[in-house]
Amino acid sequence: MVSIPHTMQQLNLLQEQTVLKVAVIGAGYWGPNLARNFKASPAWELCAIVDMDTERALKIAGPLGDVPVFSSLDDLLQRCDVDAVAIATPARTHHGVAMAAMRAGKHVVVEKPLAATREQGVEMVEFAEANGLTLMADHTYCYTPAALKIRELIAEGALGEILFIDSVRINLGLIQPDVDVFWDLAPHDLSVIDFILPGGLRPETVAAQGADPLGTGKSCVGHLTFALPNNAMAHINVNWLSPTKIRQLVVGGSRRTLVWDDLNPQQRISVYDRGVNFEKASTTAAQRKEQAVSYRLGDTWSPALPEKEALGMMVQEFSDSILGNRPSRTDGVSGLRVLSVLEAASRSLAADGEHSPVADFEVQLEGTR
Amino acid sequence: MVSIPHTMQQLNLLQEQTVLKVAVIGAGYWGPNLARNFKASPAWELCAIVDMDTERALKIAGPLGDVPVFSSLDDLLQRCDVDAVAIATPARTHHGVAMAAMRAGKHVVVEKPLAATREQGVEMVEFAEANGLTLMADHTYCYTPAALKIRELIAEGALGEILFIDSVRINLGLIQPDVDVFWDLAPHDLSVIDFILPGGLRPETVAAQGADPLGTGKSCVGHLTFALPNNAMAHINVNWLSPTKIRQLVVGGSRRTLVWDDLNPQQRISVYDRGVNFEKASTTAAQRKEQAVSYRLGDTWSPALPEKEALGMMVQEFSDSILGNRPSRTDGVSGLRVLSVLEAASRSLAADGEHSPVADFEVQLEGTR
Amino acid sequence: MVSIPHTMQQLNLLQEQTVLKVAVIGAGYWGPNLARNFKASPAWELCAIVDMDTERALKIAGPLGDVPVFSSLDDLLQRCDVDAVAIATPARTHHGVAMAAMRAGKHVVVEKPLAATREQGVEMVEFAEANGLTLMADHTYCYTPAALKIRELIAEGALGEILFIDSVRINLGLIQPDVDVFWDLAPHDLSVIDFILPGGLRPETVAAQGADPLGTGKSCVGHLTFALPNNAMAHINVNWLSPTKIRQLVVGGSRRTLVWDDLNPQQRISVYDRGVNFEKASTTAAQRKEQAVSYRLGDTWSPALPEKEALGMMVQEFSDSILGNRPSRTDGVSGLRVLSVLEAASRSLAADGEHSPVADFEVQLEGTR
Amino acid sequence: MVSIPHTMQQLNLLQEQTVLKVAVIGAGYWGPNLARNFKASPAWELCAIVDMDTERALKIAGPLGDVPVFSSLDDLLQRCDVDAVAIATPARTHHGVAMAAMRAGKHVVVEKPLAATREQGVEMVEFAEANGLTLMADHTYCYTPAALKIRELIAEGALGEILFIDSVRINLGLIQPDVDVFWDLAPHDLSVIDFILPGGLRPETVAAQGADPLGTGKSCVGHLTFALPNNAMAHINVNWLSPTKIRQLVVGGSRRTLVWDDLNPQQRISVYDRGVNFEKASTTAAQRKEQAVSYRLGDTWSPALPEKEALGMMVQEFSDSILGNRPSRTDGVSGLRVLSVLEAASRSLAADGEHSPVADFEVQLEGTR
Repeated sequence: MVSIPHTMQQLNLLQEQTVLKVAVIGAGYWGPNLARNFKASPAWELCAIVDMDTERALKIAGPLGDVPVFSSLDDLLQRCDVDAVAIATPARTHHGVAMAAMRAGKHVVVEKPLAATREQGVEMVEFAEANGLTLMADHTYCYTPAALKIRELIAEGALGEILFIDSVRINLGLIQPDVDVFWDLAPHDLSVIDFILPGGLRPETVAAQGADPLGTGKSCVGHLTFALPNNAMAHINVNWLSPTKIRQLVVGGSRRTLVWDDLNPQQRISVYDRGVNFEKASTTAAQRKEQAVSYRLGDTWSPALPEKEALGMMVQEFSDSILGNRPSRTDGVSGLRVLSVLEAASRSLAADGEHSPVADFEVQLEGTR
Repeated sequence: MVSIPHTMQQLNLLQEQTVLKVAVIGAGYWGPNLARNFKASPAWELCAIVDMDTERALKIAGPLGDVPVFSSLDDLLQRCDVDAVAIATPARTHHGVAMAAMRAGKHVVVEKPLAATREQGVEMVEFAEANGLTLMADHTYCYTPAALKIRELIAEGALGEILFIDSVRINLGLIQPDVDVFWDLAPHDLSVIDFILPGGLRPETVAAQGADPLGTGKSCVGHLTFALPNNAMAHINVNWLSPTKIRQLVVGGSRRTLVWDDLNPQQRISVYDRGVNFEKASTTAAQRKEQAVSYRLGDTWSPALPEKEALGMMVQEFSDSILGNRPSRTDGVSGLRVLSVLEAASRSLAADGEHSPVADFEVQLEGTR
Repeated sequence: MVSIPHTMQQLNLLQEQTVLKVAVIGAGYWGPNLARNFKASPAWELCAIVDMDTERALKIAGPLGDVPVFSSLDDLLQRCDVDAVAIATPARTHHGVAMAAMRAGKHVVVEKPLAATREQGVEMVEFAEANGLTLMADHTYCYTPAALKIRELIAEGALGEILFIDSVRINLGLIQPDVDVFWDLAPHDLSVIDFILPGGLRPETVAAQGADPLGTGKSCVGHLTFALPNNAMAHINVNWLSPTKIRQLVVGGSRRTLVWDDLNPQQRISVYDRGVNFEKASTTAAQRKEQAVSYRLGDTWSPALPEKEALGMMVQEFSDSILGNRPSRTDGVSGLRVLSVLEAASRSLAADGEHSPVADFEVQLEGTR
Repeated sequence: MVSIPHTMQQLNLLQEQTVLKVAVIGAGYWGPNLARNFKASPAWELCAIVDMDTERALKIAGPLGDVPVFSSLDDLLQRCDVDAVAIATPARTHHGVAMAAMRAGKHVVVEKPLAATREQGVEMVEFAEANGLTLMADHTYCYTPAALKIRELIAEGALGEILFIDSVRINLGLIQPDVDVFWDLAPHDLSVIDFILPGGLRPETVAAQGADPLGTGKSCVGHLTFALPNNAMAHINVNWLSPTKIRQLVVGGSRRTLVWDDLNPQQRISVYDRGVNFEKASTTAAQRKEQAVSYRLGDTWSPALPEKEALGMMVQEFSDSILGNRPSRTDGVSGLRVLSVLEAASRSLAADGEHSPVADFEVQLEGTR
């Protein structure tokens, strides 16, 4: 193993200075957003933009105050003393870039998905853990005011027991050259479910149904289902062929049901005090039949949400995680849980929708300690 | 086999007189709607309401002009000379009532589902066919102006090749004592899909995922997926626990995509000239990757729809089918196709979501001829 | 004055028997709705339908259990002992029919508007008052669960001080032969405003702007504005030419603002805890400029509303008013206030939108006592 | 009159070089948007940002590539050779800045409203005309794809004869220190109406109703009405106190009616082939009554709109106007028409809503030539 120049002493220095140095790797679709938010954050100093295509990098770097540009991670590491890197390169390169950066002692945040395979993700998580580095997944949607509020409401029991989750993310989407619609869109839904459920995303098995009606070689329409605790069920619908855009998450609870309609800025979250009252019985079916089922048609409530950019919250969390030496709320392990479900979904898809087991990382991790 | 008093001679008489006599069996939830529409139709004479609970029957019969009331089918058949009966009794009794009526030579329309089991349905269809009787499924939604328009648009090629169908039917629903959410709600979606697709509803297999988070003994939340021709896919989402009501069908096509939002009276149908243009290739994956994927962001069009009650159209179709001696557009066989999918869904549910084969009735029927 | 056969003794009898007898006069558009609701009410016995066109009357009377039909009010009064009549004849006949019925000692409820002119209305109100009869305006919208809730919320101060009211009622409407769009549609808005404001509808002046772009001889598009207490303002927009239908009332308050969207059954009322905080100052303009204006962006709340038919509540209120010998919540005087505003609006329209004074009935009424 | 260094020779040079030099004056709310769009336009070179508060100017100038910053127009004019200036200073300073710039021979685009008073506007327009300079009003909404499409549809007769226009622009707004809600918001509506009507905005009189329920010293809620040709009517509703945001323009026509809902990105424009068919008659009222009024309930159509930033189109139009030596589609005169209506509205407001005459600039202008 390479030597790691990151020590507790260094960390203390970091905490004193409080402003961390970061480079953004990848100047494609997402990199400019990362760069802009690091630039705007008082917790960070944006030191460099890295991209093989330096012209593309310069286009971002200029308006941000002529941030230095490098054409490779090696260049960056040799010529620039950053504390952390933010990786927004294509998914298949996440592992290589992240490992190289961590071997150089850098903290890392990686655009979703964490890696191209679960195996790569495990290596990344284990390396970060072994070397006291922060490895964070940029699960941006988790840092929206809506997702933060939902997490809070569920945690305080406002919804009661979760009965079902339904997440729809459909629009006319760019057909990706290398990933199917599950790998492209479902990480958003999975990471949010992981974020809002107190126990996180831990299905034992997953079933996926997809279709490739255009003959592109990969699914453009997909449905993912898995069990949640207490016989509840989650369903995710992703679709690149929908002419209308829907971004909606429903969390049905025994006390209340919540709808997050992300395209309705005037009422993003609605909490319905409506539902079916049914007393669970451990007794006979005959008794169950006699139980009165009643309805609750109460008020609807829509909490006010602050207008904050999610990515700004994310870069703050990255800094807090490093300086506080604590896992971020979307740490590498949560990225790994999402990756595990995606891999299981791919296996299920190949097996005609059969439930496919989801690898349980944590057990494994503990086993290796 | 009992003798059937229905002959061609009798049929000719019917066509001359043109007004057919009908009795409605069952005065519960749906019977009053049937009775009201038969009463209002110039093609029908409503002769009787039949219900064991004669008081309930009288409540309907009174306002309709004191239509005679009977407490049983036997009573009706002995004392009243009707041409047809409309059955709106509980599903488990459909087969018995329909067979008795057909044995007495009556044409029959049956509320959905056609019968409680596919086997019963097959017997009903075969008997009707063998005896020249009209057996019709009351798939009411098929006779809405919206469904009729969609059928027409697909038939004339306005949508191109079907790429996906997604049907959502969710609301806070009455938890039924004997049927799960699939048998309660999905017949609507399945019958509409059967109605609008030129080839009808003929999946080879079906996969169903359900959940019973309240412990009622049957699924309250369900997802049904099956393949359509040309690698397209259909998905149906039914849910009794949703605080909001959605009735939406999306038919994605290679030329246009159609959305039927049944709860938006101002724009029930929207036809989007938007989509992904991708030339299907029978060649290599490498060539596929090079193919340009482009987007079509054209106009949206919402056809005007007449304001007609679907049930009025249905009773007209029943009469036309009998007098014209032709199958109705939702004949017994279409009811059977819906039943076959429902049974396969139940088997899939029991097998943890595994694809379950759908019995192919037509092949069987031809074999028995 | 004619002798009135209505006495306290008779009233006491009424209260004991509790079920009142009513006839519906007018079998056109609204009469059937009134008849159906009186028929369904335990407080009423529907005794007759009256219409010159007896065939039209019979069509309603049949399904309601062959209620007797009369061709004139005289016939009715001679041959039938009713306690009250409900008048749903054309507006120009309201006064004549109501006066004749009241002269015969009958309580009267009149479809909106109360009469064709304010003068007629005053006569009706004075006669009812002088003779101890209930004269009620059928301001149906006031008895919707939404309007009842709004009245309650305003009364308990949930909205604070009223800052503005905006009511929009537009759709593709039947161009009426004798009334303009103000007289056709605005009574709904005016009666609701009268109902929900603790002080009722008492503007001193009214300004109306209208247009007759089709050359029909009367306004098809109209705007009505008037001052409310404390420098607040009300605006009503009525339009027969709108291809889309809007029924929306906004009540802006210093504490909260309420929106009633009557065409959104899933969220008819929304109460927004959002607004501008501005401390009113009795001081100088210079000081006012220095005052901080701040914003309140709080939660939204949508109260659950019962599903009740407004007309059912209205007929109950009519009975309660008669038996309790108290004015109904939409009594003749409220009908008169609406009429006064409509007349002032017509005058303003004729005067090119100039503010026109609204006759103050109450002062006059007291003056005549 | 000062000498103007702008000649035809200079213009020819301009056309050859095609890239014009511009400075943005004012770095407050709107200036950054102007600066960004000039920077992004191939037709322009952004040469300077001018603001008394140079720190504020530098904040904009930095990210745009360290554009030079000046603290006054004088500084700019002395040290920088620009062809044009874009003025985004407070409205009361528009006249002074624009006149100074035009005296120095610069073309000018001014944020709405063109000036603080109509008189100032007239002087600006006359000066520009007399000196061959382009004076343009930055009526940004006119350059949205929606407004451009509406202008086109009306011009080609798709709507038929205009029957009414209704424009609603309400939201929780910043209460302005010096202008009321009419001057703050209505310029948007007025400029769009001026833009889409073939004859432009030329009402003879205007009536305004406003309210100041918070006691801020100026109207927070306002309604503006004026006649359009052929007895049609326009209404504008502006409101700073609305908790919900509405940006909606309805143009009712004899053939079709168009709704522009600017907050519905999925269907901004809807064209309804619905309406009332009524044959205009020059004959008697009796004949009119007999005329059949019929309804047209046709399809709805929503044209696809390109996704283009309006301000980008505006700066292009500014350049095209200068180089082509033609008035822009929102030239100074259109800005003046808006100003004339605003002034008349203020007079009407002061006169309790009485119709106030709108000064007719063009007649005057011609008179002075």
